[in-house]
Amino acid sequence: MTTFAGLWRELEPLGRDGATGGYRRFSWTDADARCRAWFAGRAADRGLRVEADGNGNLWAWWGPRGPGAVATGSHLDSVPNGGAYDGALGVAAALAAVDLLREKNFHPERPVVLAVFTEEEGARWGVPCLGSRLLTGAIAPEAARGLRDDDGVTLAEAMAAAGCDPALIGPADDLLGSIAAFVELHVEQGRALAPLGAAVGVAAGIWPHGRWRLSLHGRADHAGTAGIADRCDPMLPLARTVLAAREAAERNGALATVGKVTVQPGGANAVPETVTAWLDARAADEPALAETVAAVRSVAAKASAEHGVALGVRRESYTPPVRFDERLRERIAGVLAAAGLGPAPALPTGAGHDAGVLAARLPAAMLFVRNPAGVSHSPAERAELADCEAGVRALAAVLEDLAGLCAGGTPNWPGCPARACAATC
Amino acid sequence: MTTFAGLWRELEPLGRDGATGGYRRFSWTDADARCRAWFAGRAADRGLRVEADGNGNLWAWWGPRGPGAVATGSHLDSVPNGGAYDGALGVAAALAAVDLLREKNFHPERPVVLAVFTEEEGARWGVPCLGSRLLTGAIAPEAARGLRDDDGVTLAEAMAAAGCDPALIGPADDLLGSIAAFVELHVEQGRALAPLGAAVGVAAGIWPHGRWRLSLHGRADHAGTAGIADRCDPMLPLARTVLAAREAAERNGALATVGKVTVQPGGANAVPETVTAWLDARAADEPALAETVAAVRSVAAKASAEHGVALGVRRESYTPPVRFDERLRERIAGVLAAAGLGPAPALPTGAGHDAGVLAARLPAAMLFVRNPAGVSHSPAERAELADCEAGVRALAAVLEDLAGLCAGGTPNWPGCPARACAATC
Repeated sequence: MTTFAGLWRELEPLGRDGATGGYRRFSWTDADARCRAWFAGRAADRGLRVEADGNGNLWAWWGPRGPGAVATGSHLDSVPNGGAYDGALGVAAALAAVDLLREKNFHPERPVVLAVFTEEEGARWGVPCLGSRLLTGAIAPEAARGLRDDDGVTLAEAMAAAGCDPALIGPADDLLGSIAAFVELHVEQGRALAPLGAAVGVAAGIWPHGRWRLSLHGRADHAGTAGIADRCDPMLPLARTVLAAREAAERNGALATVGKVTVQPGGANAVPETVTAWLDARAADEPALAETVAAVRSVAAKASAEHGVALGVRRESYTPPVRFDERLRERIAGVLAAAGLGPAPALPTGAGHDAGVLAARLPAAMLFVRNPAGVSHSPAERAELADCEAGVRALAAVLEDLAGLCAGGTPNWPGCPARACAATC
Repeated sequence: MTTFAGLWRELEPLGRDGATGGYRRFSWTDADARCRAWFAGRAADRGLRVEADGNGNLWAWWGPRGPGAVATGSHLDSVPNGGAYDGALGVAAALAAVDLLREKNFHPERPVVLAVFTEEEGARWGVPCLGSRLLTGAIAPEAARGLRDDDGVTLAEAMAAAGCDPALIGPADDLLGSIAAFVELHVEQGRALAPLGAAVGVAAGIWPHGRWRLSLHGRADHAGTAGIADRCDPMLPLARTVLAAREAAERNGALATVGKVTVQPGGANAVPETVTAWLDARAADEPALAETVAAVRSVAAKASAEHGVALGVRRESYTPPVRFDERLRERIAGVLAAAGLGPAPALPTGAGHDAGVLAARLPAAMLFVRNPAGVSHSPAERAELADCEAGVRALAAVLEDLAGLCAGGTPNWPGCPARACAATC
């Protein structure tokens, strides 16, 4: 038994809708503030020093902040009506792993730091992994400050209202430079581990993926009087686009989803003026992704033209393929096998993660905890307690290995530049 | 010149969005209250006695409330981002017509009453012509009281908040029995008059029409991990349904529109759990309407089953075909011709109106004012001032004819039962 179950009981009710059982932990809302306060409190209870970077990401340091650190963690925000585990599992597991290591009287040779990233889902401002993208400079601070949520509130306004200075948004190279490796534990979001009988897997890589916003602008009219042939109804090209996305995904072995649609004016007896739809597309490689998106855009353009509808397409986010650090993955696989937690299958995933964003700057890896039904982004998302506990033990073993190493003695450990070694040896 | 332009200048800014120029005059909101106060004030200025029935419909009496009355008017509520003229034109024209008759020193032999009906568009509670339906008993008071808007507010709650007792909702047979005829002036909502070079038309009848709510319930999932074949995505049967509605309408010479769609949870990276869509369908006769709706339902059911989506269909409203009173229409046509305002073309319409609801209980008719572009339910809805003035003159001529008659001398005037005659002769 680890301390995971107790931590989970505290975190589970925060931001949960009593009726659906789903979560609505949008960044910089009250629910988010409760989650952040919970993390800061539990980290402080453990004597970890908690700080926020300029982007609102939280960092809880075990040992002095300094070079060669081993980082772990995930995020606490959710999609609308999301599941309990996505993100939150990795944060609670990180705290429980620290407890487990301390029970064993482990003393890290390098700093260990627990991270909570902001707006990973992009549910409020449309850009997933916003906190890690800002940290690594993958998105310009000015562009991020001006992002508006569905109510027109900018990120800068929401951060200021939460007491954070939006002028500090942006890359934090000193902080990044002090981190030797990042290992994120996450609930599995498909159903690959269950048939393999494995509780824990290791991420192989992340599919390239992106989000495109389609604005279909027609002409509002009276549903009871405007002749069918006289209409410029944007709902019709939307329908063709939705079907084209499905077909293109099937053809390319890809994923394509239209999960968010808004209709203006939205009167039941009015031909709509504007339909806005978001296309989420992912594929095993960039050519397959490009072909999928091009096919959808082509149908959208053709159907819009047929109906006198003006089409605008804007790419809101794009993440190239991520291959997680090969040497770090191999090391983790060895650690898990040695700890009796392996063999841990290597899984590709279509989901973006902060670990994927950080992988562009430092060795990063992910552990997945089995999701028996494979359902995610839904209140039905689930993981067995025993599997979560196995995840905590796996994460603890990995942290023990990585943070227990003096870099001087382990030339094959990839995340240890000479300066880290000098600081920790 | 009539007093119409001045009245219009006062009414035009109420509830208008400065950015789009569109109107949002939802029933029992602040904007609606301002419109109602404007009407009550202008009617009172003219010495008309204003009262509200139990359903919130306003009645401004010229002369004592009593049998054999001639009623005119329309509504002041709007669809979301609606046009200026739909409903409002008939109310302002009624006031201006009274002014015109008084300038001529006309003294009505029968009471004239100006009506403003509540929630004609059904934009807030989903049931069009709610005020006139309640007045005539076409919808049960208990069902109406419990209707909820998109924020979950019931009609009863909204009326109570506006100071009206929702216990009084329901049919008003005394009031209805006192009305000998209703003539509603309305902006044209298609484009039939412009090619005919006519400023004013007379309604022939209203197509049967209705509104169906389709609930498509699938399974929420992660857009980046749930395999295409494993999904239960309700967006796909929605798309097929939208296209089926278009095809069925074309095939049956009907109208079918999906103008309101909501998607839950509505995350750009989540497969939706539920899509709710409203089908508005209208046709020249009931068989064509039934065939159109059946075709749409059939495709929706088939596509839902293919995708593991549960489909619920509920008819929210239905209006059988309306033929306006033949004798009243002929009389009006004669009056317009005699006044130099004819010949007024007879127009069928797919749009529902309070006059159509009242037609089930008493002789009713409609005048249409030319809409040069034919656009309605949109900020682009328009009517020329000269055409509005022509409409006022036409309405005044009709009121003068109908309210100037002693029933005893006009056996062919359909709305004059013996008791009305006794009261006004």
